[in-house]
Amino acid sequence: MRVRTSGDVVDMRALWWEDEAVKAIDQRALPHDFEIATIRTHTEMAEAISNMTIRGAPSIGAAGAYGMALAWRNEINLEDAAQTLRATRPTAYDLFHAIDLMSSEDGDLRRPADRYADSVVSRCERIGTNGSELIEDDMKILTHCNAGALATVDFGTALAPIRVAHRAGRRVFVFVDETRPRLQGAKLTAWELANEGIEYAVIADNAAGHYLRDEVDMVIVGADRIAANGDFANKIGTYEKAVVAGENGVPFYVAAPLSTFDPALPSGEGIVIEQRSPDEVLFIDEVRVAAGGSNALNPAFDVTPSKFVTGFITEQGIFRADNLKNFLEDARV
Amino acid sequence: MRVRTSGDVVDMRALWWEDEAVKAIDQRALPHDFEIATIRTHTEMAEAISNMTIRGAPSIGAAGAYGMALAWRNEINLEDAAQTLRATRPTAYDLFHAIDLMSSEDGDLRRPADRYADSVVSRCERIGTNGSELIEDDMKILTHCNAGALATVDFGTALAPIRVAHRAGRRVFVFVDETRPRLQGAKLTAWELANEGIEYAVIADNAAGHYLRDEVDMVIVGADRIAANGDFANKIGTYEKAVVAGENGVPFYVAAPLSTFDPALPSGEGIVIEQRSPDEVLFIDEVRVAAGGSNALNPAFDVTPSKFVTGFITEQGIFRADNLKNFLEDARV
Repeated sequence: MRVRTSGDVVDMRALWWEDEAVKAIDQRALPHDFEIATIRTHTEMAEAISNMTIRGAPSIGAAGAYGMALAWRNEINLEDAAQTLRATRPTAYDLFHAIDLMSSEDGDLRRPADRYADSVVSRCERIGTNGSELIEDDMKILTHCNAGALATVDFGTALAPIRVAHRAGRRVFVFVDETRPRLQGAKLTAWELANEGIEYAVIADNAAGHYLRDEVDMVIVGADRIAANGDFANKIGTYEKAVVAGENGVPFYVAAPLSTFDPALPSGEGIVIEQRSPDEVLFIDEVRVAAGGSNALNPAFDVTPSKFVTGFITEQGIFRADNLKNFLEDARV
Repeated sequence: MRVRTSGDVVDMRALWWEDEAVKAIDQRALPHDFEIATIRTHTEMAEAISNMTIRGAPSIGAAGAYGMALAWRNEINLEDAAQTLRATRPTAYDLFHAIDLMSSEDGDLRRPADRYADSVVSRCERIGTNGSELIEDDMKILTHCNAGALATVDFGTALAPIRVAHRAGRRVFVFVDETRPRLQGAKLTAWELANEGIEYAVIADNAAGHYLRDEVDMVIVGADRIAANGDFANKIGTYEKAVVAGENGVPFYVAAPLSTFDPALPSGEGIVIEQRSPDEVLFIDEVRVAAGGSNALNPAFDVTPSKFVTGFITEQGIFRADNLKNFLEDARV
């Protein structure tokens, strides 16, 4: 991804291996501070996933793979390391997928982890190319949360088609849901789009419906886990946007690599929804906003039924939810 | 409303006349600080409405009436004063209704303004009594923004039925949308419910859809303006909640006094939507949250079509949108 730091534009990933450690852009510090975290052990990696230094389902997958590589280098029992890493966040499927892959490898896991990260990036590039065909000149696109390069090692899922269309010279405008409670839209998606020179405006999550009525041409979101029937989990609030898009006939696309699909899960009912700390709602950037003594409920994800999905944008093409089963059987061969 | 200040519980209104001035709870300072603003002129009143010291359609109506009374006392041309007060906020109908009423009076406007405020409160009490019949023991109710006592001089519109049901001994749980960008739910509704001893949890606006799928029994919101066909304007985000409630078969009620109905407006298309400062989105409590250089769009209201409204809870009873025209003709006689 392009990152503008004190005047320079550099190209970098969200996380990478360097000098016997994993380096990662600290996503908690963005957009105001640009800091690189150094992660030396699988327990530090588990902590970096839990506290959202690294976030976004495909980036979490790569973090899981690199966490296993760190454990190998540090001569830790790999089953124990896998258990620690799996316990960090329950919803994203990529994490379990990546750890399973690493567990099936022999020897030093550094190269396999690098290959996993490379494969995430090349899948995202293909998602971008495939999805960009949906984007015409002057389109206005709504996105929710951050399914950009930060969330996917590089390039993005939901943002990938937008990046490719923009680089191809098409004019695109992005409505960026700020995405409470953690504001990944206002902080991370806005930061990525600004770095890339793509036109956008941040909106309160509440304003998405208003703009879906007559300004938004298309919605593109990412996903944390997609069931075999096309129901999918994504950042809390995605479900509302999908229902309102459906009400207004606005096409609603989910962009995700095949590693986010969980063919063993028949429907969205089986997806575990992570409940995070009430303080993420009651405080914003450590400033208390809610009335004293308030309790809060803070589900991190919701599940959107497949009937609201116009299509899934994957590295192997765009397909409809009702064709998902055939597609997955073909794709997994 | 009940207000707990340093141990004491006192009963007070959101605004009232005292010593040749208007006193108002400064809603910008809540919930962390409890401050009473003193407003001595109609221009100070216009400022208090614009900057949201006083907010909520019925409270803004009373503020308009008191602003006219201040102008009379200060020997200001009443047509000029009316123009200044009307220019503060374009969406709430009560403001125009109240100023029209004051303009039709002769002599000192202090008593007429008091009567207007009293009438708002007694209407809200009747809304509470009428609406409480919908609320059964152990119900979970979602509300958006603050349509409580602060917004309505006293008692509330959306919160009035909840107050009455609670005082009648029914157990009620309220999901409080935090209501970005200004967080009136987290700050004001939570404060009112805590003062009243009603059980609640604050949620990110994004989480409302998740809970509408299987936990919320009923939605009650207020309104800023209701057209003759039942389309209504309310705080941004209301439209999304209405669509998602409809998708899930959750009853959706609008609680408002007749002064919020604008029978001259055929549908919601004619409602002017106030665009407020982008800084309300880009900053939270003066802390910048969005990426540097970001633009934001900040519509303060949205319009919900009447087809999503199960019923309107008014001081004269509960009625359906498709019966609105007959009802308004009868009620206005």
